[in-house]
Amino acid sequence: MMLSVLDGDENVFEIVEREDNFISASVMGPKLYLAPFRRWPAHHRQAMRLVRGRTLDGGAGAGRVSLHLQERGHEVVAVDNSPGAIETCRRRGVRDARLLDFSDVDESLGTFEAIVLLGNNFGLFASPAKAKRLLRRLHKLTSDGARILAETRDVSDSPGSDQPWHVEYRKQNVARGRLPGQIRIRIRFRTIVGPWFDYPMVSRAELTDILSGTGWRLDHTIDSDDTYVAVIEKA
Amino acid sequence: MMLSVLDGDENVFEIVEREDNFISASVMGPKLYLAPFRRWPAHHRQAMRLVRGRTLDGGAGAGRVSLHLQERGHEVVAVDNSPGAIETCRRRGVRDARLLDFSDVDESLGTFEAIVLLGNNFGLFASPAKAKRLLRRLHKLTSDGARILAETRDVSDSPGSDQPWHVEYRKQNVARGRLPGQIRIRIRFRTIVGPWFDYPMVSRAELTDILSGTGWRLDHTIDSDDTYVAVIEKA
Repeated sequence: MMLSVLDGDENVFEIVEREDNFISASVMGPKLYLAPFRRWPAHHRQAMRLVRGRTLDGGAGAGRVSLHLQERGHEVVAVDNSPGAIETCRRRGVRDARLLDFSDVDESLGTFEAIVLLGNNFGLFASPAKAKRLLRRLHKLTSDGARILAETRDVSDSPGSDQPWHVEYRKQNVARGRLPGQIRIRIRFRTIVGPWFDYPMVSRAELTDILSGTGWRLDHTIDSDDTYVAVIEKA
Repeated sequence: MMLSVLDGDENVFEIVEREDNFISASVMGPKLYLAPFRRWPAHHRQAMRLVRGRTLDGGAGAGRVSLHLQERGHEVVAVDNSPGAIETCRRRGVRDARLLDFSDVDESLGTFEAIVLLGNNFGLFASPAKAKRLLRRLHKLTSDGARILAETRDVSDSPGSDQPWHVEYRKQNVARGRLPGQIRIRIRFRTIVGPWFDYPMVSRAELTDILSGTGWRLDHTIDSDDTYVAVIEKA
Protein backbone atom coordinates (compact mmCIF):
# COMPACT_ATOMS: atom_id res chain seq x y z
CA MET A 1 0.00 0.00 0.00
CA MET A 2 1.04 3.61 -0.37
CA LEU A 3 1.20 4.29 3.32
CA SER A 4 0.83 7.80 4.50
CA VAL A 5 1.59 6.52 7.98
CA LEU A 6 5.01 8.08 7.96
CA ASP A 7 4.66 11.12 5.77
CA GLY A 8 0.95 11.83 5.30
CA ASP A 9 -0.75 13.46 2.37
CA GLU A 10 -0.49 17.20 2.04
CA ASN A 11 -4.08 17.63 3.13
CA VAL A 12 -5.40 17.88 6.65
CA PHE A 13 -8.21 15.47 7.41
CA GLU A 14 -10.93 15.39 9.99
CA ILE A 15 -11.23 11.76 11.03
CA VAL A 16 -14.44 10.83 12.84
CA GLU A 17 -15.02 7.41 14.39
CA ARG A 18 -18.55 6.30 15.29
CA GLU A 19 -19.23 3.81 18.09
CA ASP A 20 -20.17 1.09 15.56
CA ASN A 21 -16.61 1.37 14.09
CA PHE A 22 -17.77 3.41 11.11
CA ILE A 23 -14.93 5.76 10.27
CA SER A 24 -14.74 8.63 7.85
CA ALA A 25 -12.22 11.19 6.75
CA SER A 26 -13.12 14.61 5.49
CA VAL A 27 -10.99 17.22 3.77
CA MET A 28 -13.90 19.65 3.40
CA GLY A 29 -14.40 20.09 7.16
CA PRO A 30 -10.99 21.53 7.98
CA LYS A 31 -11.13 23.73 4.88
CA LEU A 32 -14.45 25.23 5.98
CA TYR A 33 -13.26 25.80 9.55
CA LEU A 34 -10.76 28.35 8.27
CA ALA A 35 -12.78 29.67 5.34
CA PRO A 36 -13.60 33.37 4.95
CA PHE A 37 -17.30 34.31 4.78
CA ARG A 38 -17.42 34.40 0.96
CA ARG A 39 -16.42 30.71 0.82
CA TRP A 40 -19.09 29.50 3.24
CA PRO A 41 -22.01 27.43 1.93
CA ALA A 42 -25.06 29.51 0.99
CA HIS A 43 -27.23 28.34 3.91
CA HIS A 44 -24.54 29.42 6.40
CA ARG A 45 -24.28 32.86 4.77
CA GLN A 46 -28.07 33.20 4.75
CA ALA A 47 -28.24 32.29 8.44
CA MET A 48 -25.85 35.12 9.29
CA ARG A 49 -28.41 37.66 7.99
CA LEU A 50 -30.73 36.66 10.84
CA VAL A 51 -28.22 37.43 13.58
CA ARG A 52 -29.04 40.48 15.68
CA GLY A 53 -27.14 41.92 18.66
CA ARG A 54 -24.97 40.19 21.24
CA THR A 55 -24.28 36.64 20.10
CA LEU A 56 -23.20 33.34 21.64
CA ASP A 57 -21.19 31.12 19.26
CA GLY A 58 -21.55 27.55 20.54
CA GLY A 59 -18.80 25.10 19.63
CA ALA A 60 -16.83 27.91 18.04
CA GLY A 61 -14.03 25.70 16.70
CA ALA A 62 -11.48 27.81 14.87
CA GLY A 63 -13.75 30.84 15.26
CA ARG A 64 -14.98 31.51 11.74
CA VAL A 65 -18.51 32.49 12.87
CA SER A 66 -17.27 34.67 15.73
CA LEU A 67 -14.71 36.41 13.52
CA HIS A 68 -17.32 37.16 10.87
CA LEU A 69 -19.84 38.52 13.38
CA GLN A 70 -17.17 40.63 15.13
CA GLU A 71 -16.30 42.15 11.76
CA ARG A 72 -19.93 43.02 11.32
CA GLY A 73 -19.89 44.85 14.65
CA HIS A 74 -21.51 42.26 16.92
CA GLU A 75 -20.39 41.57 20.43
CA VAL A 76 -19.66 37.83 20.44
CA VAL A 77 -18.88 35.25 23.10
CA ALA A 78 -17.26 32.12 21.65
CA VAL A 79 -17.40 28.92 23.72
CA ASP A 80 -15.81 25.56 23.01
CA ASN A 81 -14.83 22.63 25.22
CA SER A 82 -11.58 22.14 23.30
CA PRO A 83 -8.53 24.02 24.64
CA GLY A 84 -6.99 23.85 21.17
CA ALA A 85 -10.08 25.42 19.63
CA ILE A 86 -10.12 28.25 22.16
CA GLU A 87 -6.42 28.90 21.65
CA THR A 88 -7.03 28.98 17.88
CA CYS A 89 -9.98 31.38 18.30
CA ARG A 90 -7.82 33.74 20.33
CA ARG A 91 -4.85 33.59 17.96
CA ARG A 92 -7.14 34.33 15.04
CA GLY A 93 -8.58 37.38 16.78
CA VAL A 94 -11.76 36.31 18.59
CA ARG A 95 -11.93 38.84 21.44
CA ASP A 96 -14.00 36.81 23.94
CA ALA A 97 -13.31 33.07 23.60
CA ARG A 98 -13.96 30.88 26.62
CA LEU A 99 -13.10 27.27 27.40
CA LEU A 100 -16.58 26.07 28.33
CA ASP A 101 -18.81 23.18 27.41
CA PHE A 102 -21.93 24.46 25.62
CA SER A 103 -24.06 22.57 28.17
CA ASP A 104 -22.51 24.70 30.96
CA VAL A 105 -23.55 28.04 29.47
CA ASP A 106 -25.41 30.08 32.09
CA GLU A 107 -26.37 33.61 33.12
CA SER A 108 -22.81 34.43 34.12
CA LEU A 109 -22.18 35.05 30.41
CA GLY A 110 -24.80 37.84 30.32
CA THR A 111 -27.76 38.19 27.96
CA PHE A 112 -27.79 37.23 24.29
CA GLU A 113 -29.96 38.19 21.34
CA ALA A 114 -28.68 35.33 19.18
CA ILE A 115 -27.21 31.87 19.69
CA VAL A 116 -25.43 30.34 16.72
CA LEU A 117 -24.81 26.58 16.40
CA LEU A 118 -23.53 26.12 12.85
CA GLY A 119 -21.65 23.09 11.52
CA ASN A 120 -24.15 20.54 12.87
CA ASN A 121 -23.68 22.01 16.34
CA PHE A 122 -27.30 21.36 17.26
CA GLY A 123 -25.52 18.14 18.27
CA LEU A 124 -24.03 19.96 21.28
CA PHE A 125 -27.45 19.57 22.93
CA ALA A 126 -26.35 15.88 23.33
CA SER A 127 -29.83 14.30 23.81
CA PRO A 128 -33.52 15.30 23.71
CA ALA A 129 -33.74 15.40 27.54
CA LYS A 130 -30.58 17.47 27.92
CA ALA A 131 -31.73 19.70 25.06
CA LYS A 132 -35.01 20.48 26.84
CA ARG A 133 -33.22 21.42 30.04
CA LEU A 134 -30.64 23.58 28.29
CA LEU A 135 -33.24 25.26 26.06
CA ARG A 136 -35.17 26.35 29.17
CA ARG A 137 -31.97 27.81 30.62
CA LEU A 138 -31.14 29.54 27.31
CA HIS A 139 -34.64 31.05 27.39
CA LYS A 140 -33.73 32.89 30.58
CA LEU A 141 -30.45 34.27 29.36
CA THR A 142 -31.76 35.63 26.05
CA SER A 143 -33.71 38.79 25.23
CA ASP A 144 -37.36 38.75 24.08
CA GLY A 145 -36.74 38.72 20.33
CA ALA A 146 -33.82 36.27 20.55
CA ARG A 147 -33.13 33.59 17.97
CA ILE A 148 -31.27 30.32 17.97
CA LEU A 149 -29.74 29.38 14.62
CA ALA A 150 -28.91 25.68 14.86
CA GLU A 151 -27.68 23.49 12.04
CA THR A 152 -28.64 19.84 11.95
CA ARG A 153 -29.57 17.06 9.51
CA ASP A 154 -32.54 14.80 8.83
CA VAL A 155 -30.67 11.49 8.77
CA SER A 156 -33.54 9.67 7.07
CA ASP A 157 -33.34 12.00 4.10
CA SER A 158 -29.77 13.11 3.44
CA PRO A 159 -27.12 12.08 0.90
CA GLY A 160 -25.81 8.61 1.72
CA SER A 161 -28.48 7.89 4.34
CA ASP A 162 -29.59 4.73 2.48
CA GLN A 163 -26.13 3.15 2.75
CA PRO A 164 -26.49 -0.11 4.68
CA TRP A 165 -23.97 0.76 7.41
CA HIS A 166 -25.99 3.89 8.22
CA VAL A 167 -29.38 2.15 7.98
CA GLU A 168 -28.13 -0.52 10.41
CA TYR A 169 -26.78 2.06 12.87
CA ARG A 170 -30.04 4.04 12.88
CA LYS A 171 -31.91 0.79 13.61
CA GLN A 172 -29.60 0.06 16.55
CA ASN A 173 -30.17 3.57 17.90
CA VAL A 174 -33.94 3.22 17.74
CA ALA A 175 -33.73 -0.22 19.38
CA ARG A 176 -31.84 1.39 22.26
CA GLY A 177 -34.45 4.13 22.66
CA ARG A 178 -32.28 6.78 21.03
CA LEU A 179 -33.13 9.07 18.15
CA PRO A 180 -32.06 7.46 14.85
CA GLY A 181 -29.60 10.32 14.30
CA GLN A 182 -28.27 10.40 17.85
CA ILE A 183 -24.76 9.45 16.86
CA ARG A 184 -21.98 8.73 19.35
CA ILE A 185 -18.59 9.65 17.95
CA ARG A 186 -15.04 10.63 18.72
CA ILE A 187 -12.43 12.59 16.82
CA ARG A 188 -8.99 11.26 15.98
CA PHE A 189 -5.93 13.15 14.85
CA ARG A 190 -2.43 11.72 14.62
CA THR A 191 -2.06 9.87 17.95
CA ILE A 192 -4.79 11.89 19.67
CA VAL A 193 -8.01 10.02 20.43
CA GLY A 194 -10.79 12.28 21.69
CA PRO A 195 -13.45 11.20 24.21
CA TRP A 196 -16.70 9.64 22.98
CA PHE A 197 -19.62 12.06 22.87
CA ASP A 198 -23.25 12.11 21.78
CA TYR A 199 -23.99 14.42 18.88
CA PRO A 200 -27.62 14.05 17.75
CA MET A 201 -28.99 15.09 14.39
CA VAL A 202 -32.71 15.67 14.14
CA SER A 203 -35.51 15.93 11.61
CA ARG A 204 -37.87 18.91 11.67
CA ALA A 205 -40.51 16.80 13.47
CA GLU A 206 -38.01 15.57 16.09
CA LEU A 207 -36.83 19.14 16.60
CA THR A 208 -40.41 20.38 17.06
CA ASP A 209 -40.93 17.71 19.76
CA ILE A 210 -37.75 18.74 21.54
CA LEU A 211 -38.71 22.44 21.49
CA SER A 212 -42.17 21.74 22.88
CA GLY A 213 -42.54 23.09 26.42
CA THR A 214 -39.19 24.89 26.40
CA GLY A 215 -40.45 28.35 25.45
CA TRP A 216 -38.97 28.04 21.96
CA ARG A 217 -40.57 27.20 18.58
CA LEU A 218 -39.28 26.37 15.12
CA ASP A 219 -40.02 29.40 12.94
CA HIS A 220 -38.60 28.17 9.64
CA THR A 221 -35.59 26.38 8.19
CA ILE A 222 -32.85 27.42 5.79
CA ASP A 223 -32.27 24.37 3.65
CA SER A 224 -29.35 22.90 1.74
CA ASP A 225 -28.88 19.65 -0.17
CA ASP A 226 -27.84 17.97 3.05
CA THR A 227 -28.15 19.80 6.38
CA TYR A 228 -30.54 22.60 7.35
CA VAL A 229 -30.35 25.57 9.68
CA ALA A 230 -33.29 25.69 12.10
CA VAL A 231 -34.39 29.25 12.86
CA ILE A 232 -35.74 28.95 16.41
CA GLU A 233 -37.61 31.83 18.06
CA LYS A 234 -39.27 32.43 21.38
CA ALA A 235 -42.75 30.90 21.52
CA MET B 1 -18.29 20.08 12.93
CA MET B 2 -18.96 19.32 9.29
CA LEU B 3 -19.47 15.64 9.78
CA SER B 4 -18.95 13.37 6.88
CA VAL B 5 -20.15 10.54 9.09
CA LEU B 6 -23.41 10.31 7.25
CA ASP B 7 -22.59 11.49 3.78
CA GLY B 8 -18.82 11.36 3.33
CA ASP B 9 -16.70 13.47 1.08
CA GLU B 10 -16.64 12.64 -2.61
CA ASN B 11 -13.17 11.18 -2.29
CA VAL B 12 -12.25 7.67 -1.28
CA PHE B 13 -9.73 7.50 1.54
CA GLU B 14 -7.31 4.87 2.72
CA ILE B 15 -7.41 5.04 6.50
CA VAL B 16 -4.49 3.38 8.28
CA GLU B 17 -4.33 2.97 12.06
CA ARG B 18 -1.02 2.20 13.76
CA GLU B 19 -0.84 0.30 17.07
CA ASP B 20 0.15 3.48 18.95
CA ASN B 21 -3.19 5.06 17.85
CA PHE B 22 -1.57 7.12 15.12
CA ILE B 23 -4.12 7.38 12.34
CA SER B 24 -3.82 8.76 8.85
CA ALA B 25 -6.01 9.18 5.82
CA SER B 26 -4.72 9.20 2.29
CA VAL B 27 -6.44 10.16 -0.93
CA MET B 28 -3.34 9.49 -3.05
CA GLY B 29 -3.22 5.78 -2.23
CA PRO B 30 -6.59 4.81 -3.70
CA LYS B 31 -5.92 7.02 -6.74
CA LEU B 32 -2.66 5.22 -7.46
CA TYR B 33 -4.21 1.75 -7.01
CA LEU B 34 -6.33 2.35 -10.09
CA ALA B 35 -3.91 4.54 -12.03
CA PRO B 36 -2.77 3.64 -15.56
CA PHE B 37 0.99 3.22 -16.09
CA ARG B 38 1.52 6.78 -17.36
CA ARG B 39 0.29 8.17 -14.04
CA TRP B 40 2.56 6.05 -11.86
CA PRO B 41 5.44 7.73 -10.00
CA ALA B 42 8.70 7.71 -11.92
CA HIS B 43 10.47 5.15 -9.70
CA HIS B 44 7.62 2.67 -10.22
CA ARG B 45 7.80 3.12 -13.99
CA GLN B 46 11.58 2.73 -13.92
CA ALA B 47 11.28 -0.48 -11.90
CA MET B 48 9.03 -2.00 -14.56
CA ARG B 49 11.91 -1.78 -17.08
CA LEU B 50 13.80 -4.33 -14.99
CA VAL B 51 11.08 -6.98 -15.14
CA ARG B 52 11.90 -10.01 -17.28
CA GLY B 53 9.78 -13.11 -17.94
CA ARG B 54 7.23 -14.82 -15.72
CA THR B 55 6.41 -12.56 -12.78
CA LEU B 56 4.93 -12.86 -9.31
CA ASP B 57 3.03 -9.75 -8.16
CA GLY B 58 2.97 -9.85 -4.34
CA GLY B 59 0.15 -7.99 -2.60
CA ALA B 60 -1.40 -7.22 -5.97
CA GLY B 61 -4.20 -5.02 -4.59
CA ALA B 62 -6.36 -3.75 -7.42
CA GLY B 63 -3.94 -5.28 -9.92
CA ARG B 64 -2.30 -2.29 -11.53
CA VAL B 65 1.15 -3.94 -11.73
CA SER B 66 -0.23 -7.24 -13.03
CA LEU B 67 -2.38 -5.50 -15.64
CA HIS B 68 0.55 -3.46 -16.89
CA LEU B 69 2.87 -6.47 -17.12
CA GLN B 70 0.19 -8.57 -18.83
CA GLU B 71 -0.20 -5.80 -21.41
CA ARG B 72 3.54 -5.96 -21.99
CA GLY B 73 3.24 -9.68 -22.67
CA HIS B 74 4.42 -11.12 -19.37
CA GLU B 75 2.87 -14.13 -17.74
CA VAL B 76 1.87 -12.87 -14.27
CA VAL B 77 0.61 -14.52 -11.10
CA ALA B 78 -1.06 -12.02 -8.76
CA VAL B 79 -1.40 -12.94 -5.09
CA ASP B 80 -3.13 -11.06 -2.31
CA ASN B 81 -4.57 -12.14 1.06
CA SER B 82 -7.62 -9.90 0.57
CA PRO B 83 -10.64 -11.54 -1.11
CA GLY B 84 -11.81 -8.07 -2.19
CA ALA B 85 -8.46 -7.35 -3.82
CA ILE B 86 -8.49 -10.66 -5.71
CA GLU B 87 -12.05 -10.09 -6.88
CA THR B 88 -11.03 -6.62 -8.06
CA CYS B 89 -7.97 -8.01 -9.87
CA ARG B 90 -10.16 -10.53 -11.70
CA ARG B 91 -12.86 -8.00 -12.63
CA ARG B 92 -10.21 -5.66 -13.98
CA GLY B 93 -8.75 -8.41 -16.17
CA VAL B 94 -5.88 -10.03 -14.25
CA ARG B 95 -5.83 -13.53 -15.73
CA ASP B 96 -4.20 -15.41 -12.82
CA ALA B 97 -5.13 -13.85 -9.48
CA ARG B 98 -4.96 -16.05 -6.38
CA LEU B 99 -6.18 -15.55 -2.83
CA LEU B 100 -2.93 -16.31 -1.03
CA ASP B 101 -0.82 -14.69 1.64
CA PHE B 102 2.55 -13.68 0.22
CA SER B 103 4.24 -15.64 3.01
CA ASP B 104 2.56 -18.82 1.71
CA VAL B 105 4.00 -18.57 -1.80
CA ASP B 106 5.73 -21.85 -2.73
CA GLU B 107 6.85 -24.05 -5.64
CA SER B 108 3.23 -24.97 -6.48
CA LEU B 109 3.07 -21.60 -8.28
CA GLY B 110 5.87 -22.61 -10.67
CA THR B 111 9.11 -20.75 -11.41
CA PHE B 112 9.47 -16.98 -11.66
CA GLU B 113 12.00 -14.67 -13.23
CA ALA B 114 10.76 -11.62 -11.36
CA ILE B 115 9.00 -10.87 -8.09
CA VAL B 116 7.45 -7.43 -7.75
CA LEU B 117 6.59 -5.88 -4.38
CA LEU B 118 5.69 -2.27 -5.18
CA GLY B 119 3.73 0.11 -2.94
CA ASN B 120 5.87 -0.54 0.15
CA ASN B 121 5.14 -4.25 -0.21
CA PHE B 122 8.56 -5.19 1.09
CA GLY B 123 6.44 -4.99 4.25
CA LEU B 124 4.79 -8.30 3.30
CA PHE B 125 7.98 -10.00 4.57
CA ALA B 126 6.56 -9.11 8.05
CA SER B 127 9.82 -9.34 10.06
CA PRO B 128 13.56 -9.84 9.49
CA ALA B 129 13.37 -13.51 10.60
CA LYS B 130 10.35 -14.26 8.43
CA ALA B 131 11.96 -12.39 5.56
CA LYS B 132 15.08 -14.57 5.72
CA ARG B 133 13.03 -17.79 5.66
CA LEU B 134 10.84 -16.61 2.79
CA LEU B 135 13.78 -15.24 0.78
CA ARG B 136 15.44 -18.68 0.92
CA ARG B 137 12.21 -20.26 -0.35
CA LEU B 138 11.89 -17.64 -3.09
CA HIS B 139 15.46 -18.44 -4.12
CA LYS B 140 14.34 -22.00 -4.96
CA LEU B 141 11.31 -21.01 -6.99
CA THR B 142 13.09 -18.45 -9.15
CA SER B 143 15.34 -18.83 -12.18
CA ASP B 144 19.07 -18.04 -12.13
CA GLY B 145 18.88 -14.45 -13.36
CA ALA B 146 15.78 -13.63 -11.28
CA ARG B 147 15.20 -10.26 -9.63
CA ILE B 148 13.11 -9.08 -6.72
CA LEU B 149 11.88 -5.47 -7.06
CA ALA B 150 10.75 -4.47 -3.58
CA GLU B 151 9.69 -0.99 -2.51
CA THR B 152 10.37 0.19 1.00
CA ARG B 153 11.34 3.29 2.96
CA ASP B 154 14.18 4.44 5.20
CA VAL B 155 12.09 5.71 8.11
CA SER B 156 14.98 7.65 9.61
CA ASP B 157 15.29 9.74 6.46
CA SER B 158 11.91 10.29 4.81
CA PRO B 159 9.49 13.23 4.73
CA GLY B 160 7.83 13.67 8.10
CA SER B 161 10.12 11.23 9.88
CA ASP B 162 11.18 13.90 12.41
CA GLN B 163 7.61 14.45 13.62
CA PRO B 164 7.51 13.63 17.36
CA TRP B 165 4.78 10.96 17.13
CA HIS B 166 6.94 9.04 14.62
CA VAL B 167 10.19 9.57 16.56
CA GLU B 168 8.49 8.23 19.69
CA TYR B 169 7.08 5.19 17.88
CA ARG B 170 10.46 4.28 16.37
CA LYS B 171 11.98 4.49 19.87
CA GLN B 172 9.32 2.13 21.22
CA ASN B 173 10.00 -0.31 18.38
CA VAL B 174 13.74 -0.36 19.07
CA ALA B 175 13.08 -0.78 22.82
CA ARG B 176 11.00 -3.87 21.98
CA GLY B 177 13.75 -5.32 19.80
CA ARG B 178 11.99 -4.48 16.56
CA LEU B 179 13.32 -2.56 13.59
CA PRO B 180 12.49 1.16 13.97
CA GLY B 181 10.34 0.96 10.83
CA GLN B 182 8.64 -2.33 11.72
CA ILE B 183 5.18 -0.79 11.94
CA ARG B 184 2.12 -2.70 13.10
CA ILE B 185 -1.02 -1.40 11.44
CA ARG B 186 -4.54 -2.16 10.37
CA ILE B 187 -6.78 -0.79 7.65
CA ARG B 188 -10.20 0.72 8.29
CA PHE B 189 -12.98 1.39 5.80
CA ARG B 190 -16.52 2.34 6.71
CA THR B 191 -17.39 -0.18 9.45
CA ILE B 192 -14.71 -2.66 8.38
CA VAL B 193 -11.73 -3.03 10.73
CA GLY B 194 -8.94 -5.16 9.27
CA PRO B 195 -6.67 -7.39 11.37
CA TRP B 196 -3.44 -5.98 12.81
CA PHE B 197 -0.36 -6.90 10.80
CA ASP B 198 3.37 -6.18 10.79
CA TYR B 199 4.59 -4.23 7.80
CA PRO B 200 8.27 -3.36 8.16
CA MET B 201 10.07 -0.61 6.28
CA VAL B 202 13.84 -0.87 6.06
CA SER B 203 16.92 1.20 5.33
CA ARG B 204 19.48 0.00 2.79
CA ALA B 205 21.73 -1.24 5.62
CA GLU B 206 18.88 -3.12 7.32
CA LEU B 207 17.93 -4.65 3.99
CA THR B 208 21.52 -5.76 3.35
CA ASP B 209 21.54 -7.50 6.76
CA ILE B 210 18.26 -9.25 6.00
CA LEU B 211 19.49 -10.47 2.60
CA SER B 212 22.71 -11.82 4.05
CA GLY B 213 22.80 -15.62 3.92
CA THR B 214 19.61 -15.93 1.87
CA GLY B 215 21.23 -16.25 -1.57
CA TRP B 216 20.13 -12.73 -2.52
CA ARG B 217 22.01 -9.40 -2.62
CA LEU B 218 21.06 -5.77 -3.04
CA ASP B 219 22.26 -4.74 -6.52
CA HIS B 220 21.11 -1.12 -6.53
CA THR B 221 18.16 1.07 -5.60
CA ILE B 222 15.78 3.21 -7.63
CA ASP B 223 15.21 6.27 -5.48
CA SER B 224 12.42 8.77 -5.00
CA ASP B 225 11.92 11.66 -2.58
CA ASP B 226 10.41 9.23 -0.10
CA THR B 227 10.48 5.49 -0.74
CA TYR B 228 12.96 3.49 -2.82
CA VAL B 229 12.75 0.34 -4.93
CA ALA B 230 15.39 -2.22 -3.98
CA VAL B 231 16.67 -4.17 -6.98
CA ILE B 232 17.59 -7.52 -5.46
CA GLU B 233 19.49 -10.15 -7.45
CA LYS B 234 20.81 -13.61 -6.80
CA ALA B 235 24.14 -13.54 -4.94
